[in-house]
Amino acid sequence: MSILVVGSVAFDAIQTPFGKVDRCLGGSATYFSVAASFFTEVDLVAVVGDDFTDDDLSIFRGRNVNLDGLQRVAGAKTFFWSGEYGFDLNVAKTRDTQLNVFADFKPELSEKHRNPDVLFLANIQPDLQLDVLKQCRRPRLVALDTMNLWIATAKESLTRILREVDLVVINEAEVRQYTEEANLIKGARQILALGPKTLVVKRGEYGVMMITADAVFAAPAYPLEAVFDPTGAGDTFAGGFLGYLASRAEVTDRDLRRAIIFGSVLASFTVEKFSLDRLREITLNDVYDRYQEFRALTHFDDHEQ
Amino acid sequence: MSILVVGSVAFDAIQTPFGKVDRCLGGSATYFSVAASFFTEVDLVAVVGDDFTDDDLSIFRGRNVNLDGLQRVAGAKTFFWSGEYGFDLNVAKTRDTQLNVFADFKPELSEKHRNPDVLFLANIQPDLQLDVLKQCRRPRLVALDTMNLWIATAKESLTRILREVDLVVINEAEVRQYTEEANLIKGARQILALGPKTLVVKRGEYGVMMITADAVFAAPAYPLEAVFDPTGAGDTFAGGFLGYLASRAEVTDRDLRRAIIFGSVLASFTVEKFSLDRLREITLNDVYDRYQEFRALTHFDDHEQ
Repeated sequence: MSILVVGSVAFDAIQTPFGKVDRCLGGSATYFSVAASFFTEVDLVAVVGDDFTDDDLSIFRGRNVNLDGLQRVAGAKTFFWSGEYGFDLNVAKTRDTQLNVFADFKPELSEKHRNPDVLFLANIQPDLQLDVLKQCRRPRLVALDTMNLWIATAKESLTRILREVDLVVINEAEVRQYTEEANLIKGARQILALGPKTLVVKRGEYGVMMITADAVFAAPAYPLEAVFDPTGAGDTFAGGFLGYLASRAEVTDRDLRRAIIFGSVLASFTVEKFSLDRLREITLNDVYDRYQEFRALTHFDDHEQ
Repeated sequence: MSILVVGSVAFDAIQTPFGKVDRCLGGSATYFSVAASFFTEVDLVAVVGDDFTDDDLSIFRGRNVNLDGLQRVAGAKTFFWSGEYGFDLNVAKTRDTQLNVFADFKPELSEKHRNPDVLFLANIQPDLQLDVLKQCRRPRLVALDTMNLWIATAKESLTRILREVDLVVINEAEVRQYTEEANLIKGARQILALGPKTLVVKRGEYGVMMITADAVFAAPAYPLEAVFDPTGAGDTFAGGFLGYLASRAEVTDRDLRRAIIFGSVLASFTVEKFSLDRLREITLNDVYDRYQEFRALTHFDDHEQ
């Protein structure tokens, strides 16, 4: 089973209370692809400029990430984001955004990309998300992420694409912003009423809550003594989550719960270092080990405990 | 096994986005006692004025709450707190505090109260907490709660009593305030280094995290679609948590985890109505039912799932 992701590949400049980096690899599709590739094959669709070097591509080497859909535009620069975090690492302050080549990004899927098993529409303009979805034969599972900017500036478009997807990965504050409802569960139910079967709410250091028509599942974040840089945590989570689901023959409630934990595990590694530096180092065994730690972190009435 | 609680019995005036009440029963020791009494016998030590009627006492009737230690002072008024919540129900805004009879509260334990099995020092001035502890023969388990006011105004006293207790129940923001450490786990370890074996961190709508030398356990809050009034949630949690522990012959990691869930269950009922109105209605069966729901809410890899 394979997964197609459409999103950004970028360069980031990041400052946290613990360090600073002027240019590192970033972008939603980058974090997503690397995380998902621990479990499944990934087709990445994105665009970069000619400042994106073969060395920058090294993150994908030796992984199940197919780059046929990564377009390199001559004479243009890669999407650039600069952000800063204070001691409250839950909130990034954007210092600069240079869309560059991303400003004209209008994904045209090649014939071989039009039949994905799982489609992830990473955080791009919602009309583009809908356009990509229309280019595909109906995938088994369609998921999207979004952001406060689109809720504020393109809410109708966002609502249109929300009606078409199976699963939404979204921040807690964005649920409240989109629904104008203070209670998270009520807000979640409003979004589910539009069509999605599953809402996965990212809550930063408080973990993740998954809401479906029948059930609520809550997972804490892994309790790290040193969160170094939260950039990419949400996209890494989505990659681990959907990557695991793509590897399963069907998607049961049990699979969804496990997928939430695998996503949380991968995100917990991402935040330990800048950029994808920590994801470069870890193996699937490290992922499984931390998965077991999540069990110890959350279970209270196991017979074997 | 019995538990002794020293704290406040009060009248509250509360306004939330969902309603308003000018005078209702409140106080840390009130919520704590009623919650703990689901599991064990409770001795309540507190003080009220002569405006506290027999009708106000009705909450304790038919429960395992011994009121011999509840002093009624003639010609004085009961402690009064008035607070308000906006849509962010995690934060109460105090409108008025009238200490009244509580201003001169200096608990003198009777001989029969000096040998508790479990002692809970609810949120009172830390020198008073230490004074109460010194009046007791060493209990099996001593726990305390505190608040931002004492961290700001009586930090040395608070540190003295922290060195003497086994278990601390504290808000997340208070851990950060006391330790001046942004990372919660690091802050928690600083407090554990003073002496307590167990730190239980209350995180409002995000639930509870328990940190010991060997383990971290995280439990979400019960996902309610209608949180009506959060007043007393923390004290109810502490009551359910310690009440359950007091009912156990010894305190294992497994007992601590179960106790966290029982505390969370009881707190989730408290916030459904004003004051202790919801606690009045529920039975131990309701508690057990919701306990099972917490299992479904958090477990991801049970064999029976």
